Amino acid sequence: MKLGDLGEFGFIARIRAAARPGPGLCLGIGDDCAVSEVPAGELLLTTTDMLLENVHFRRDWTSPRLLGRKSVAVNVSDIAAMGGDVRHLYLGLGVPVHVPVAELDELLAGVLEAAADYGADLAGGDTCVSPGPLVISVTAEGTIARDRVVQRSGARPGDAIYVSGTLGDSALALRELQAGRTPEPFLASRHHDPLARADLGRRLAGERLATAMIDVSDGLLADLGHLLWASACGAKIAGAALPLSPPFSAALAADPALFSLALGGGEDYELLFTAPPEAAAALVHLAAATGIPLSRIGTVVPAVDGVSVTDRSGHLLTELPSGHDHFRGRV
Amino acid sequence: MKLGDLGEFGFIARIRAAARPGPGLCLGIGDDCAVSEVPAGELLLTTTDMLLENVHFRRDWTSPRLLGRKSVAVNVSDIAAMGGDVRHLYLGLGVPVHVPVAELDELLAGVLEAAADYGADLAGGDTCVSPGPLVISVTAEGTIARDRVVQRSGARPGDAIYVSGTLGDSALALRELQAGRTPEPFLASRHHDPLARADLGRRLAGERLATAMIDVSDGLLADLGHLLWASACGAKIAGAALPLSPPFSAALAADPALFSLALGGGEDYELLFTAPPEAAAALVHLAAATGIPLSRIGTVVPAVDGVSVTDRSGHLLTELPSGHDHFRGRV
Repeated sequence: MKLGDLGEFGFIARIRAAARPGPGLCLGIGDDCAVSEVPAGELLLTTTDMLLENVHFRRDWTSPRLLGRKSVAVNVSDIAAMGGDVRHLYLGLGVPVHVPVAELDELLAGVLEAAADYGADLAGGDTCVSPGPLVISVTAEGTIARDRVVQRSGARPGDAIYVSGTLGDSALALRELQAGRTPEPFLASRHHDPLARADLGRRLAGERLATAMIDVSDGLLADLGHLLWASACGAKIAGAALPLSPPFSAALAADPALFSLALGGGEDYELLFTAPPEAAAALVHLAAATGIPLSRIGTVVPAVDGVSVTDRSGHLLTELPSGHDHFRGRV
Repeated sequence: MKLGDLGEFGFIARIRAAARPGPGLCLGIGDDCAVSEVPAGELLLTTTDMLLENVHFRRDWTSPRLLGRKSVAVNVSDIAAMGGDVRHLYLGLGVPVHVPVAELDELLAGVLEAAADYGADLAGGDTCVSPGPLVISVTAEGTIARDRVVQRSGARPGDAIYVSGTLGDSALALRELQAGRTPEPFLASRHHDPLARADLGRRLAGERLATAMIDVSDGLLADLGHLLWASACGAKIAGAALPLSPPFSAALAADPALFSLALGGGEDYELLFTAPPEAAAALVHLAAATGIPLSRIGTVVPAVDGVSVTDRSGHLLTELPSGHDHFRGRV
């Protein structure tokens, strides 16, 4: 069946039947707006991310289900980076008419699966036909206790800089795909099915361990730059401390130039945060409790000292890879 | 200047500088999420609408400023249809790289102008390059007192059916544009620069006058159908009572077939609502106070009686125009 047979309202009815609203939601899909409640004493967090076919994904490289999951994860990652709990998701879809309904059902299944993983409800959306690429626009709402919000701007000189998980995996997978090769399965999964660090972000905020936080979507150095700019600080980063996965390390051994992917590659969706030195023991405990490695990769310094990064041998890098910029250089 | 010269973060900095957050917003553009507050005793309303180039608009038929204004208005209209106050807007943009920055600045100016008109803040968004059409995805958040929400489902047999403003203007303008003609200025303005009935919706809810409400975006009969389906009711609609503007009436005099645009044409963004008979006097007063005509166009009947519509001479229509469906018939 094609979308043209089902019709817009048939498709919305299908989504509505599949999305069963949870307790936080007063009114879900099927009216002019979703109606929900923000618990007393909590603040609302809102973020939105657009995924465009042939820019953010290629339909021949991924599956509709993973694409649905990823569309949710990249938004949840932004909520996690403030320390919040994701509550509601809104799904905007622009669909080329030739896309089979079965493919949309799979995409929707992925969205709902990820929503359930993170404890969120699909609360609304908009669907329309697209004359060009498949367009997926997700908005996520979360909540957080008023005194627990972690902004990008809270880093202070002397704070340690940490990153969760490993870096560069997603960018290495993308590079393989772009070269026409099949990425190693772990790397492929990191690229196509990233997991937002929802629980970790909530605990870093809840236990007041992080002074500033951001998720790594544009690349370590680019996102560090955003955090430092907001905090009006500089940083020293030790390349030897960057956490690398075994498949990434294996590839790096064969091609040392790949190190730039750990510094500059996007879409790892790890949490990059700063913490005062006295939080070190609590962070070791948190890493053990969550099973997510937390690596100390550097130190916040005064803004006048700028940003310095060493390579894996401890030599200062004079040229830094830039992160992802959606517009630059595309004229 | 082209987007490629400015870069993604240059463009975001431009938006951030232009959008000055108001008092309801704790943290606007520039972190992973916007942070805001929902007043105690109020519920959160959220809606999202996507506008795609060559589906919802053509760049050669409108101006970037009006396009920005309309992107906001269509979302505010959904908040108004629940009776709420719009608070925050989130702007997702997928931009073809060849679009001049001056055009984006105009679009942004239109967004901010409309946001100010409706008392909302631009609180966040996402920008990326689009390989195809210009994509505009807006999410709006509003608030409403817990006991004032007006749903689609509250209509009861015996309620009167009202619509604000006039019908068919936007569809007639679109028809002229599609035929290569220049629409009459009032009609053109209704199509390119629709005004959401924000104050009217709020007052209909605040004074508990409406039992059910929806905005007319897909066409009168289609949106009436949504309302009746949610309310499990039928309706009798008197074609002679449909409110028509002078330019629409003039065109109708020359071509009686245009009446189907008043019944089926989309994008009027008027409010369609039901009210008990005893609200009639208060609605006359409200129309006078707001300067917005409120026309009684029919009556809610039991579901078993179905939906019947008469033409302007009072004869029952046997074939009803269907509203806009984004997918159907597009295979």
